[in-house]
Amino acid sequence: MDAELLRKLIVQADTKIAMVVMDGLGGLPLEPGGPTELEAARTPNLDALAARSVLGLTIPVGPGITPGSGPGHLALFGYDPVEYDIGRGVLEALGIGFDMRPEDVAARGNFCTVNADGVLTDRRAGRLATEMSRELAALLRTIRVDGAQFFVETVKEHRFAFVMRGEGLGDALSETDPQKVGVRPLPVRALRPDAERSARVVNRFVDEARRLLADRHPANMILLRGFARYPAIPTFHERFGLRAGAVAVNGMYRGVARLVGMTVLDVGGESVADEFAALERHWRDFDFFYLHVKQTDTAGESGDFWRKVRAIEEVDAQMPRLMALEPDVVIVSGDHSSPAALRSHSWHPVPTLLYSRRARADGIAQFGERACARGSLGVLPATHIMPIALANAGRIAKYGA
Amino acid sequence: MDAELLRKLIVQADTKIAMVVMDGLGGLPLEPGGPTELEAARTPNLDALAARSVLGLTIPVGPGITPGSGPGHLALFGYDPVEYDIGRGVLEALGIGFDMRPEDVAARGNFCTVNADGVLTDRRAGRLATEMSRELAALLRTIRVDGAQFFVETVKEHRFAFVMRGEGLGDALSETDPQKVGVRPLPVRALRPDAERSARVVNRFVDEARRLLADRHPANMILLRGFARYPAIPTFHERFGLRAGAVAVNGMYRGVARLVGMTVLDVGGESVADEFAALERHWRDFDFFYLHVKQTDTAGESGDFWRKVRAIEEVDAQMPRLMALEPDVVIVSGDHSSPAALRSHSWHPVPTLLYSRRARADGIAQFGERACARGSLGVLPATHIMPIALANAGRIAKYGA
Repeated sequence: MDAELLRKLIVQADTKIAMVVMDGLGGLPLEPGGPTELEAARTPNLDALAARSVLGLTIPVGPGITPGSGPGHLALFGYDPVEYDIGRGVLEALGIGFDMRPEDVAARGNFCTVNADGVLTDRRAGRLATEMSRELAALLRTIRVDGAQFFVETVKEHRFAFVMRGEGLGDALSETDPQKVGVRPLPVRALRPDAERSARVVNRFVDEARRLLADRHPANMILLRGFARYPAIPTFHERFGLRAGAVAVNGMYRGVARLVGMTVLDVGGESVADEFAALERHWRDFDFFYLHVKQTDTAGESGDFWRKVRAIEEVDAQMPRLMALEPDVVIVSGDHSSPAALRSHSWHPVPTLLYSRRARADGIAQFGERACARGSLGVLPATHIMPIALANAGRIAKYGA
Repeated sequence: MDAELLRKLIVQADTKIAMVVMDGLGGLPLEPGGPTELEAARTPNLDALAARSVLGLTIPVGPGITPGSGPGHLALFGYDPVEYDIGRGVLEALGIGFDMRPEDVAARGNFCTVNADGVLTDRRAGRLATEMSRELAALLRTIRVDGAQFFVETVKEHRFAFVMRGEGLGDALSETDPQKVGVRPLPVRALRPDAERSARVVNRFVDEARRLLADRHPANMILLRGFARYPAIPTFHERFGLRAGAVAVNGMYRGVARLVGMTVLDVGGESVADEFAALERHWRDFDFFYLHVKQTDTAGESGDFWRKVRAIEEVDAQMPRLMALEPDVVIVSGDHSSPAALRSHSWHPVPTLLYSRRARADGIAQFGERACARGSLGVLPATHIMPIALANAGRIAKYGA
């Protein structure tokens, strides 16, 4: 997809697009020849919608590449996930809803345990209780170093997001985490000259942290990794001319939506039904809606085939609420596959449905991996979905005469 | 497609390729679940050919992109339609069969109406009668400006093609058409330094035109837009080693064929049968034939589903004449979709058939959108068709040992 060409052809229209992302939707059979989670699920509403849709299998990043949630979502949102590489630290900060600014450098932090010689004995400080982690984060926030402001936000247990804010702080920094015990945490090194000052600031911060935490065994030291600047990424509105609203419960997905300039909506609950209710409430306010369902991925990653099936069925049950809003285009897909059989994200192409009255429907009345493999979208990069959706929404002008 | 690699591998062979382009071939059902135009058409010859062919759906420019006829054809001819961007002015000139030279700069012209203050009141001069337009074009041809020669050729009603010829005339020029009434036409500005002289020449021409047309209300002024130089594009022979002949009635398609170095043949009539007769007459003279059928697009754009069906059936009825010539490779496709249901060009992938005795036939005895969605060519860029055709014609050498 040629992003520059697309941007030139974007026109406005009074149409609405809804993208339902079931996290980790793609699956695998429990035994050879059996159904996948999606195929096993009873999905009368999605099946009926499939009959009026075009189907295909999307590849989020590239053949054989297992995407993280960040790249998987960026691709569905029409951004090349390799061109727009979101650093680990940024994802951690986005994940807890931290409002990063362009000049911020974020990292993922761990509380850890060192012995009297400063040698690492536990990289996770015994998976410190979250409560204690919060108390220590407050302590770290008292650290002052000239030329930078620090934010330390607890994620869960030993994990925290570290953000430093200041003029001209580079993010080309090595990690302090040696990724093994029995050695000392590493000092941060600048990997490019423009990060020299940044390295000094971080090393001062870590020295102060060591001093402050000295008597807080097992959490008597910190590790920092995945330093990254907030990426400069064109917004959904700049790129597609869409006012976009995001319905997501989990911080990470709210963060990725914010990253591309979507307005992140209050859900007012954590269930799938709550999410569809939020969609209904805000239907008049936006041109594009992203609705994220986490439960499918959680079940897949914990290896629970039937819980994933039920999560899909729960989404299916809500689909009539979306269709009652009479959207012009509906996409149902996933940001990647998470087969219960693998208990993890995977590289398998993701079943994808695109409904529109203007689509040339395949007439395949089933939403599943094998049904999608027969669809007329074929096997396609996930980045192609947005332009196809925009075309079906009457939002792309003709190219050339 | 790697054009440079392909060029290195081209070999000669005593084989013939015929490409039948039904303009705007792809369609949509009139009602959900119904057949498209191509599916509704009775096409016994194409269906029989499909059974011995590989089928697929081609994407002319990119996902979701609705192509104009220029880009749609370039893609089928194996040229990246974004790399080879043909300006509006060039298409207008090609459309009336104007024989552009590399140094020419073309633009699309409109006669328009201005009031006593020079303010635009009608951008189309009341859709001036073509007869009157011709008379005024003759008047504009009398304009002389040093360093350039002008051509003004009536297209239809208020529209004309404007071409200026001269050494070193740049085409990076802004438009005079403000695209709205109530304001004055704009002077042309150079968008790059190499177009400074060009801008002066055009502005002089427009000043003279204003003077000459002053008492010709409603056509008392002109607007010019889409300034473009004739693109430097490698010929079909340079690229594929093919001597190519084009059979097309309409000027625009004859122009696009000429653009890639095809020999444009005399058809000696305007019907589809006349076109196939021209193919027969010239069969010995070329390696590659492009045969263009306009009627399918005209019907699609006017929303006449059944007229498009009949146009397809008319082509089907002629197919035995082509097959009797024993071509080595036959391609039947379209430059884009033009569903009657949308009354316009559209982004939908285009049904495509490639016959050759060497093809690994899909054995699908039907030529239609859904049949093509099941074909082994899959969903593919239209630019891939030429290399596949060349391979089937024994015209591409092995790559590597």
